[in-house]
Amino acid sequence: MAGNILGEIFKVVTWGESHGPAIGSVIDGCPPQLQLSEEIIQKELDKRRPGDGQPGTTPRKEPDKVQILSGVFEGFTTGAPISLVIWNQDAKSKSYDHLKDIFRPGHGDFTYYKKYGIRDYRGGGRSSGRETAARVAAGAVAQLILNVLDIKVVAFTRALAGVTATKIDLETIEQSPYFCPDSEACILMEESLRDIREKGDSAGGIVEIRVKNCPAGLGEPVFDKLDADLARALMSIGAVKSVEIGRGIEVAKLTGSQNNDEITPYGFITNNAGGILGGISNGDEIVCRVAIKPIPSISMRQKTINTRFEPADIVIFGRHDSSAIPRIVPVCQAMARLVIADHLLRQITLKGFNKIEL
Amino acid sequence: MAGNILGEIFKVVTWGESHGPAIGSVIDGCPPQLQLSEEIIQKELDKRRPGDGQPGTTPRKEPDKVQILSGVFEGFTTGAPISLVIWNQDAKSKSYDHLKDIFRPGHGDFTYYKKYGIRDYRGGGRSSGRETAARVAAGAVAQLILNVLDIKVVAFTRALAGVTATKIDLETIEQSPYFCPDSEACILMEESLRDIREKGDSAGGIVEIRVKNCPAGLGEPVFDKLDADLARALMSIGAVKSVEIGRGIEVAKLTGSQNNDEITPYGFITNNAGGILGGISNGDEIVCRVAIKPIPSISMRQKTINTRFEPADIVIFGRHDSSAIPRIVPVCQAMARLVIADHLLRQITLKGFNKIEL
Amino acid sequence: MAGNILGEIFKVVTWGESHGPAIGSVIDGCPPQLQLSEEIIQKELDKRRPGDGQPGTTPRKEPDKVQILSGVFEGFTTGAPISLVIWNQDAKSKSYDHLKDIFRPGHGDFTYYKKYGIRDYRGGGRSSGRETAARVAAGAVAQLILNVLDIKVVAFTRALAGVTATKIDLETIEQSPYFCPDSEACILMEESLRDIREKGDSAGGIVEIRVKNCPAGLGEPVFDKLDADLARALMSIGAVKSVEIGRGIEVAKLTGSQNNDEITPYGFITNNAGGILGGISNGDEIVCRVAIKPIPSISMRQKTINTRFEPADIVIFGRHDSSAIPRIVPVCQAMARLVIADHLLRQITLKGFNKIEL
Amino acid sequence: MAGNILGEIFKVVTWGESHGPAIGSVIDGCPPQLQLSEEIIQKELDKRRPGDGQPGTTPRKEPDKVQILSGVFEGFTTGAPISLVIWNQDAKSKSYDHLKDIFRPGHGDFTYYKKYGIRDYRGGGRSSGRETAARVAAGAVAQLILNVLDIKVVAFTRALAGVTATKIDLETIEQSPYFCPDSEACILMEESLRDIREKGDSAGGIVEIRVKNCPAGLGEPVFDKLDADLARALMSIGAVKSVEIGRGIEVAKLTGSQNNDEITPYGFITNNAGGILGGISNGDEIVCRVAIKPIPSISMRQKTINTRFEPADIVIFGRHDSSAIPRIVPVCQAMARLVIADHLLRQITLKGFNKIEL
Repeated sequence: MAGNILGEIFKVVTWGESHGPAIGSVIDGCPPQLQLSEEIIQKELDKRRPGDGQPGTTPRKEPDKVQILSGVFEGFTTGAPISLVIWNQDAKSKSYDHLKDIFRPGHGDFTYYKKYGIRDYRGGGRSSGRETAARVAAGAVAQLILNVLDIKVVAFTRALAGVTATKIDLETIEQSPYFCPDSEACILMEESLRDIREKGDSAGGIVEIRVKNCPAGLGEPVFDKLDADLARALMSIGAVKSVEIGRGIEVAKLTGSQNNDEITPYGFITNNAGGILGGISNGDEIVCRVAIKPIPSISMRQKTINTRFEPADIVIFGRHDSSAIPRIVPVCQAMARLVIADHLLRQITLKGFNKIEL
Repeated sequence: MAGNILGEIFKVVTWGESHGPAIGSVIDGCPPQLQLSEEIIQKELDKRRPGDGQPGTTPRKEPDKVQILSGVFEGFTTGAPISLVIWNQDAKSKSYDHLKDIFRPGHGDFTYYKKYGIRDYRGGGRSSGRETAARVAAGAVAQLILNVLDIKVVAFTRALAGVTATKIDLETIEQSPYFCPDSEACILMEESLRDIREKGDSAGGIVEIRVKNCPAGLGEPVFDKLDADLARALMSIGAVKSVEIGRGIEVAKLTGSQNNDEITPYGFITNNAGGILGGISNGDEIVCRVAIKPIPSISMRQKTINTRFEPADIVIFGRHDSSAIPRIVPVCQAMARLVIADHLLRQITLKGFNKIEL
Repeated sequence: MAGNILGEIFKVVTWGESHGPAIGSVIDGCPPQLQLSEEIIQKELDKRRPGDGQPGTTPRKEPDKVQILSGVFEGFTTGAPISLVIWNQDAKSKSYDHLKDIFRPGHGDFTYYKKYGIRDYRGGGRSSGRETAARVAAGAVAQLILNVLDIKVVAFTRALAGVTATKIDLETIEQSPYFCPDSEACILMEESLRDIREKGDSAGGIVEIRVKNCPAGLGEPVFDKLDADLARALMSIGAVKSVEIGRGIEVAKLTGSQNNDEITPYGFITNNAGGILGGISNGDEIVCRVAIKPIPSISMRQKTINTRFEPADIVIFGRHDSSAIPRIVPVCQAMARLVIADHLLRQITLKGFNKIEL
Repeated sequence: MAGNILGEIFKVVTWGESHGPAIGSVIDGCPPQLQLSEEIIQKELDKRRPGDGQPGTTPRKEPDKVQILSGVFEGFTTGAPISLVIWNQDAKSKSYDHLKDIFRPGHGDFTYYKKYGIRDYRGGGRSSGRETAARVAAGAVAQLILNVLDIKVVAFTRALAGVTATKIDLETIEQSPYFCPDSEACILMEESLRDIREKGDSAGGIVEIRVKNCPAGLGEPVFDKLDADLARALMSIGAVKSVEIGRGIEVAKLTGSQNNDEITPYGFITNNAGGILGGISNGDEIVCRVAIKPIPSISMRQKTINTRFEPADIVIFGRHDSSAIPRIVPVCQAMARLVIADHLLRQITLKGFNKIEL
């Protein structure tokens, strides 16, 4: 039990179900005197909103307005817990009644039932992707901490529906409906995704996360290493099935002379390590990639069982995305923000100790 | 700071440097009345010992004898912390003096120096792979908990030095010098590794971990999911650069209809999920894979800098393995054991609550 | 930072300021399938409401209506985090403007300013006693767990305004305006408190907490002992300045033969230990007492300084209680509930292990 | 389970039983570059050694030599976990065989048996006061952190065997066999304790802890307040039955005007608060007091039960102190050191954030 808290110093709790009255997060450990408003958070939340026109996203239109309930006074954080709430306004839970007694393949329905013996079946309940809005909101607050060192966390679509972006133009990401840094690949992604959707199927992809300007020294060996905590945080996102750091899975085929990043007084010559050595940031760009599984809700007929453990067929209609991309991209960004902010504060304790004066 | 504790209920602390007097671990939260002896732990430790003849491992011959200092009385655990110590007997720290002022590429030398401002340079100090012996010892204790449900954790070499095992015969793993389940591939691995070593280079590979008989219900959404905690624990091993669950990175290219595991009253038809859905075990076999980077210590000349941040060349002689495989295999097994044991105890709290009687 | 989370398995976060939009708590780790409604929580909240007629309490009339935002489905807990919110409806923050630049003696004004460099001065902000309503709400949920073993937590006023209750009739507590178990003492308390209030002064007292039907075995040596965790939880209430277990401070003057509780097959002959031995409950009634300091807000003139650290005089008008009693009594009860529930779940892990079957 | 870890940033684990091979502690989170040697720790350990001549302490003569096994390199801490071990050399476990099947009144024998179902009965096993040596060793390391701000933690005997020290001369504490600051009272204490011991009985007392030069701002509301964490840490010492902060239990009888500490530009006029306001240090001296129960091991006949729950008589011979004082005094000091050091590091995170530069 009690697995809804992330972080050691910058702690985040999320709560809420897809079709309950609201979702939210509480941040315990945010430093005081940071300028924070609902607008700052809202801007980030808007990025993961159901798309305005991009194909593959659900027509559910939530305003997803965040409200700050505590921890901010006259526009600044006070050091007290920051409570954020996002009300669920478009929760048509009636449309989920037909899923009450059946387990959808690829979803957490079966395992939640086995674990808890009770299941909020409305739209996935707690296991819904909707919970990730609370992560994005908390990530916006974490970014305030990163801003002090001008640390930037960028996330983008590296691959979608079988198409891979090869030209990485980070400037175009926010303009792209799929957070894709390669405008040509983006067109192909859209076409491929449309084909898949028309068959009633769904698509997976790859999201890449890069952290720029991260100072050397973040990460706490031997268990709370920076890469370990990034892996955990990213893998905790529902659709993620792999996490790679730097060259990632490719290192298995390399030799030491190919993989080692030689060092010069001006920095590392290559960045196969993805900015992390011995579990500690080395000052180079941090690079992670995660594989996103195709959305399990498809309108093709599938075999399953019902809650009486009898065989059943299921065809899932209703609103659902054809891919977790693009909406999962800001979630990946948020998780990296939360991890880096927490580790930054942990490192300050250590560095601050040498110039202690309270 | 303070990143050396793993687990929420079954907590493990490791301590110790490569060339200090000893390494060890303390386990806080082991249930009482489990039969435990030094022999049980020793048997696991022996698996990660420097090889008896297999090529690619260092000639350093540590007996690596574990000693139980607390928490066991008359052959049974008491519920008190279990303190395990392994003495360092073959620590030739003099041979590391030439590394005092230089950062080895691919190692944690540079980042430890940047983080702490002080560095135990002897054999990697805290960042040495030697620390993982303490993990293996703790993993042996964790296995006692898994035994109650007959849960088995198997780890093996899926790929090494460019050769991939395709025939998975788990029976042969313990006999294989490389924990390889494919005896033909094993011969090719050995040849490939010899070639690489002769060039003064080193090799990477893939380790796969499978958990059999794991009951459904383990994992604590939304952050302490079973896959998230496995990812963190495995990524905390020095050489690991990627973690995959089930089909892992391949899911990016699949469609929902290809990736979803259909359900029958007799179980899941396929296991693309790798035994985990919604972050909770589904009763199927748990499958993870990790990419192991090539050992960074190579005897080829490399560019680097010294502690005065001046350019320097480095050629690393002395004893070092040509691949983290096979010695890292029992470490992967141990990390999975620690995570599963911890989550088993967390789930007992929840399940036990329904039949509460103290 | 990050000190707003209590508990290891049954975790509670509270958030909110006296004059922000709301206060609340999130409970992470509540077992599923417990019947829970807003009415159950409301009943407990009503006990700490500003008094209906009892002298010494503020005229601020908050309905203090709790709302459950997550974690409950069709009347039962689901195992997901339970988010509780209580809206602040009667927050006249204008009346605090005169306290903006001055530190009230005996309050946290000065220390919050020194710690955070920013201060929500409205009604004490985060340090206000109002935060304890969120604790009482969480305590009501904790009691659901205790109900399974019929564990009852009783709190009452042992002393107030210099008058001590000597006749302990637990039946009368809930009827008494001061949660006093001695109806004669209660009259004297009321008189003494009225005298003190008329002088513009305030009064302290003693609250006693008793836990009935607590099984033997709760408490986790050597740091998370049951008495240690009770001490921490009770001392975290703003006005508490001492915590005693069993005979408490009196044991300093006793000899071993006077203090030891002899044991018979039918139980302990005496209960000087207050139900806890070696940090673990012994099956006897648990007895704690806490000293409550007089409310620091008094209308007598006091010396202080302003935020420019210049000397100043202060006379505090406006609504404020003359004693933290009776409103603090349900808070003490709630804190004991939270600690016992958490330790009950921790012990279930251990006990459940012997009959493991998931 | 898993209750043997203290602290959030400066984390301490203790392990070991009275008659096992050794006891020890692991410190995770100690900043690097602090000068540390076995001598520094030994000096503190020697203070709690069995007395050299003072009456009332056991004749068991342990050298109690501490050994540093990790975390220190060339005389300085490295930021890695510090493992400390103290070998048990004088463990005559045979002399405890007669206690194998019987529960000593006032000890944790009964509750450990009820909790764990197994009991290391030799000299109290884990519940022995001997475990506190590991706390004192860790406390010596914590003091290194406090030294940076010249924070001093003093502990002394305020009362023993019915005699109270009224003249507080802190200079004489370390010379006094009872850590008593009042040389005249000390003589009376010694006489009173001798009388009690001659009857085969034992005595309780009061220990007072004072922290000098503690800066304002330490403590993390609302649960990890400084007073709350001090209360928990002190109450976790076996013999402690009450914890008071500042005026402590006396505040129950005071009025606000008597208890409030008025403020001037030069500091607080009085210190009834004991240096803590709103759970945060206010810059004044921190004052705590704890009541120590009389040692339960007495040679007078007592009623008890055996492990078959049959009535039995017990007379405890063998070596045991007549009072936990003086040996408990350095333990109280150590616990305060651990808490203050941890909170100092937590506050550095917050303060350091404003001048962040890594």
